[in-house]
Formats: sequence, C-alpha cells, structure tokens
Amino acid sequence: MSTHIVVPKRGFSPGEFESRVDRAQEIMRKAELDAVFVTSPPNVRYFTGFDSQFWESPTRPWFVVVPLEGEPIAVIPEIGAPEMALTWVDDIRTWPAPVPEDDGISLLKGTLEHLPRRFGRVGAELGREMALRMPVNDLLKLRENLGSEIVDGSPAIWEMRMVKTPAEIEHIAYICRIASDAYEALPSQISIGENEREAVRKLRIDIARRGADATPFMPAISGPGGVPQIVCGPHDRTLEDGDILFIDTGSTFDGYFCDFDRNYAIGRISSEAARVHEALWLATEAGIAAAVPGATTDDIWRAMSKIIEDAGAIGNNVGRLGHGLGLQLTEPPSHRPGDGTRIVENMVLTIEPGMEYAPGKMIVHEENITVTKDGPRLLTTRAPREMPIIR
Amino acid sequence: MSTHIVVPKRGFSPGEFESRVDRAQEIMRKAELDAVFVTSPPNVRYFTGFDSQFWESPTRPWFVVVPLEGEPIAVIPEIGAPEMALTWVDDIRTWPAPVPEDDGISLLKGTLEHLPRRFGRVGAELGREMALRMPVNDLLKLRENLGSEIVDGSPAIWEMRMVKTPAEIEHIAYICRIASDAYEALPSQISIGENEREAVRKLRIDIARRGADATPFMPAISGPGGVPQIVCGPHDRTLEDGDILFIDTGSTFDGYFCDFDRNYAIGRISSEAARVHEALWLATEAGIAAAVPGATTDDIWRAMSKIIEDAGAIGNNVGRLGHGLGLQLTEPPSHRPGDGTRIVENMVLTIEPGMEYAPGKMIVHEENITVTKDGPRLLTTRAPREMPIIR
Repeated sequence: MSTHIVVPKRGFSPGEFESRVDRAQEIMRKAELDAVFVTSPPNVRYFTGFDSQFWESPTRPWFVVVPLEGEPIAVIPEIGAPEMALTWVDDIRTWPAPVPEDDGISLLKGTLEHLPRRFGRVGAELGREMALRMPVNDLLKLRENLGSEIVDGSPAIWEMRMVKTPAEIEHIAYICRIASDAYEALPSQISIGENEREAVRKLRIDIARRGADATPFMPAISGPGGVPQIVCGPHDRTLEDGDILFIDTGSTFDGYFCDFDRNYAIGRISSEAARVHEALWLATEAGIAAAVPGATTDDIWRAMSKIIEDAGAIGNNVGRLGHGLGLQLTEPPSHRPGDGTRIVENMVLTIEPGMEYAPGKMIVHEENITVTKDGPRLLTTRAPREMPIIR
Repeated sequence: MSTHIVVPKRGFSPGEFESRVDRAQEIMRKAELDAVFVTSPPNVRYFTGFDSQFWESPTRPWFVVVPLEGEPIAVIPEIGAPEMALTWVDDIRTWPAPVPEDDGISLLKGTLEHLPRRFGRVGAELGREMALRMPVNDLLKLRENLGSEIVDGSPAIWEMRMVKTPAEIEHIAYICRIASDAYEALPSQISIGENEREAVRKLRIDIARRGADATPFMPAISGPGGVPQIVCGPHDRTLEDGDILFIDTGSTFDGYFCDFDRNYAIGRISSEAARVHEALWLATEAGIAAAVPGATTDDIWRAMSKIIEDAGAIGNNVGRLGHGLGLQLTEPPSHRPGDGTRIVENMVLTIEPGMEYAPGKMIVHEENITVTKDGPRLLTTRAPREMPIIR
C-alpha cells in the first residue's frame, strides 16, 4: 500500500486565480451583481491566495472587492499591505486601521462606487454558512449610503466555491491521503487502558509528521457500542473492552481541509454494534455510488437514509448525512431532504451516514469524495468493512 | 530565575460564572437591555465555559441568551447539546440544525420574547471588534419580527469583558510566563544561517513543551536593522549578520491569550538600530508607568508617543500603541488618540510602542500588564534592555 504520494505545489498560479475570477464574474453576471465584496478568511484566500495568522485579531476588518470586470481590489488595513503585496493582487488600497469611527467603510464605499454600474447591485456575505467579518453596524451604515443596493452574495459565492479546480482537488486529496494513512496506523499505536486524550495526541502527532500543516478539528469520543455525540472531546475517559472509539479530523494542507472519521473497536464490540457498523458501511457505499453528475443532494441523502432506517435508526443529532468541504471544514451543500443541490463535476463532498441505534449509542461513518464526469472518486482510503480492533 | 510556576486550575467554578453574569446584568441594567444574545466563540465561552473545535464548522449558528435576570439560556444545534450539558448552563434549547429555512431563529425569537420585558431592547454583537457568527440575513429577519428592538450590545459586552476576574488574570499570567521563558531560551537554540521558519518551529515546540495549549499566532520576520511589517511570516529568509529577528506570539492556555513580541539581534546590529531599540525600551517603560487607574488610553498613548516622536519616527503601520487582550488575541481598548477609555483595576493590556525609523525598518516592542489598584503589574518577564544576540 505504499504508493508514492506527490506533495502538491503550495499556493496557486496567477493563472489559477485569473480563472477563478473569470468564473466568478460569469456567475456574477448571471446573478446581476456589479461586484461582490468579501471579508472572511476563506473568501479572501479564495480570490487572493492571502493567508495570515493575523485573522486571530478581530480588531481590523479586511475587504476584497471582486468587480464584474477586471481584477480583485484589496481594501485593507495598512498593517497588512506589505504581505498582501506578495500575492497576485496589484490593486491594494489601505487605511490606518484601527479607526473605529470609519474602519475602511468610506474607502470601501469609494472603491465600490467607482466601479462601472450595470445592475446597481453589490453582493456581500449575508447568507448561509458565512459569517461577515466586520461590524454589522458598519455594513448597515454602508448599505444606507451606498449608491447601489447591497444584496446577499452568498448564493453566488457558494456557486463559485462549491465546484473546485483541479489544483484545489489535488490539495484536498493530499490531506485526505495523509489522514487516511495515519488513521490506518493508529491501532498499532494505542491499547486498551489508554484514554481518549492519549489517542488524539498520538494521531495528531502522526498526522503532523506525515505532512499536514495543522489539525484544527479532531474531536474524539468513546463509549460502549457507540457514542452520544461526534463533535466534542477528547475527554479523560479510558478506553475499555466493548467500546467504540470515534475520531474525526479536519486537518489541513495549504488551507484545504479533509473531513472524515474512523471508528475503532476496543477489544470485542457487541454483535448489535457490529450489525449497525455493517449497515453504515453499506450506507456509505450507497451514498458514494449516488454522487454522480445530475443527481441531487436529496438523492444522495435518500440512498443512505433507506439503509439507515431499515437498520433501525432511532435518531441522528447531526441533522444531515454529509456536506461540501474545501477551504472550510464544512461548506454547502448538505445531504438532507429539501437541499436540492444539483451534483456537478469537481464538487468535493463528504458522505457521512450516521445513526443512533439505542439511546446514547450513535455510530457515524464518513468518507470524502470528488465527483468526476464518470462518477464519484474516493479521496480517502476507504474504511475497512470490519472495524479495526484496538487491543 | 527558576521560581516555581503554579499551573492555574482549568475551567472556572459555577461561582465565577455567576459573578460574571451578575456583573453583566448590572451593566445591562445601566445600558437598558432586557437581554443580550451572543453568537461568537469568545462570548459564548465567557458566559458558559463552553469550548469546542466544532467552531471550525460555520454551518450551524449557536446562541447564548443572557437575560437581565436569571441564568443564561443556550439556544443551540442538537449536535452540540450533549457537550453543552457538561457546562454550568442548565437551560439548553435545541433545534435539528442545519435547517437553512429557520436555523434557530424562531427558537431564539421565542426565547427572547418570553423574557420579562422592561426596556424593550435586546443587545447583539453589532459593533467594534466583534463578528456576528450567524447569517446577517437571519439577524435582519429577527430584527424585523422581534417584539423588542435589537440594538448594539457590543459596548456593554466589552464593558463586561474588558475588566478581568482574578481567575482570568491568573490564566493570562500563566501563558505570559510560559512564553517569556521560551523567548528567553531561544538564543541558545538558533544560530546565524538558520531561517525564520526554523526559528519559529523551535519556539513553537518549546512553548508547547512548557505547557501552552496552542499557538494560533506566531508571526516572525527578519531584516537588516528592522522589519517592514509585524503580523505575517515566517518566510524562508535566512538570518544574517546585522538583522533584527522579530517574533510575536499569541499562545493560549485554557482559552486565554498572551500577546507580546521579542526582538533579537542577529550578530551585530547597527548603532542606529540600537539607538531606536533603546528609545522603544524607554517608551515601553513610560507606557507601563502610565497604565494606572484613572488614566485613559490616550494618556498611555501620549506617554509612549512623545518618546517615539523624539526618537525620529517616520511612521508606524500598526495604527496604535497597544490594546486589550484576554479570550481574544486583541480586544478593546486601543492606545490611540481619541480612544478615551478610562483605565480601571483588573484590565489586562499590551504596551506596544513601535516605529519605522527608515523606510522598511520598523522596530516594535510589546509587554503585557494588568492594572492593580496600586498601578501596573507586569505579566510578562520584562524584555532585557540590551537586545539578546543570536550568533
């Protein structure tokens, strides 16, 4: 299994950003937007390539304007200009932030108002799965004073980001492969009697050693035959015979996430837990198989849901059976009834069936795939049908 | 210098949260707010103690309502309920998120409308240095339909958080001490000819080894006699004789940040750089001395600014000379003219004079202090007056 892994080149070419912007502008034309402006780290990074640990400081807002024609304009605090100048962005406009009285708002307003006005509408991050990284009061003030209408740009932005470029998919495939290899190696590293924290510590170190940049998300939880939740932990709980140890990870390479889990049998699990595990393995197969161009997220949900219901699910507090991923751990769409997103080539998705089969006993599987014109392609190394055993 | 470091107890007692809420309610009464509701990780953590890596997933909004009387109410996605139940919060209300059609908004509305109505005003995170973690469109919809007015709660929330409790100060003092010790040990670990990335890697590992939970912020940059910016990097640049290596860190313990920098002379720096370094060391002394109860942030700024101007500053792209810190790397207030915040006991502040003395040559110093009734108390180990040398 030791096929050679090629490390993707870090960063993206100016040509890649140009084609992202071209595609964005096509979508903006359809959505009748003269521009979108973005404030959140993943959106700024998507259009500029700019990344910074300085996002930890929420004091100063940053703006990137993507006009209907021409190149992105960075409207940013002076403190960030030297680093933004290292990206492909040429037009960088600054103010001496922080200035709470006018933290870039009049500069942003001037920038937007000097663009050609065709539709009289500007898109902003107002909708689902996006958090605007600027004071809402400043947005409202801008909305009152701007010559154009500010509308929800998030459907357009998600349409842009939901379909990945080949270079983005390479990035995600690489981090999926790193985490897959580390998950496979975990049973040889831990034993019954160690605790959840120790398991996470070892897996984190292994993932870093194999080349991940960071592991912002690694919840872990254990319990007899299943777990009550899947997004928090680890705690001090000791792994005992009959437990299932659940670990999920969102690790990153060059800004791009994997997001998938693995389950480990601690010693010998009950036949009931093994039965549910088998059903979820089959539900994952069905979910993967359903992810073909032309299907919808509802179809993918239905393919898994049928098997889960038949296996005797009493619930699932996750609220859906998978989602998109990329520069964020979770992105649209959601595999849930009514989501209705059409599956197209080059989407990257999680397939994540889960069920509670007895109170407090939940099992959740998860793989990451991309959609090709010929159908789904696994980015993760498929979880073994039999749960790996930790002794 | 090896005095014993006491590791603070992780988490906070129910009594601590009760007194935070008592104080919050006093401030809310003054601000004429029937409730505040918060959505962002630091604010949720401040009132509940809840922390989660699941913040990485921006799909589902979370709400915590702090009413004018009584205890906080968590209005959260089902997926988070088992872990929220481990905090001191008793009243937990859930919905099966994600449901983009109504992601908690009607549940939040009902929760707010069932509170006693005294002022008809509810505070939200609409203002400075806060990012609302929910779709803005959902906030606007709530604002239209809620029986009460939604107003900017951020001045009230910052008034609450800006003054720290003794237990919070203990947390910050601990992480400041860890980072101070690691900075002091760095010159023995690196040499001329290594690069910025290597220096950061060693310092990160040492800070982790000494007991920090995470280091979300560690920009580093080097340049002959100073640096062009202080918030990005490291890059591959090799450390050369005459350089100054600047490293800043926001490392955390149990959610609380330190935020201070250190400068290292690579071999022998110019006499001009040494002169500016001395002026900034003295400016730091003056800034610390000015941080007494009753002074304002303007006074602290002025005490430093005078020395910096006299030393021949040609600029400073940072925009201020220090700020608050705590659950965020940067928090209000800002030491800048016009900020006007009154300094009171138990604030925690950075003192951060900086100046560009020649184009592209900036030097910035930084220490962390808390304010006692008798005056400032250093939380960091004061930087040596002579710049430590890396050979």
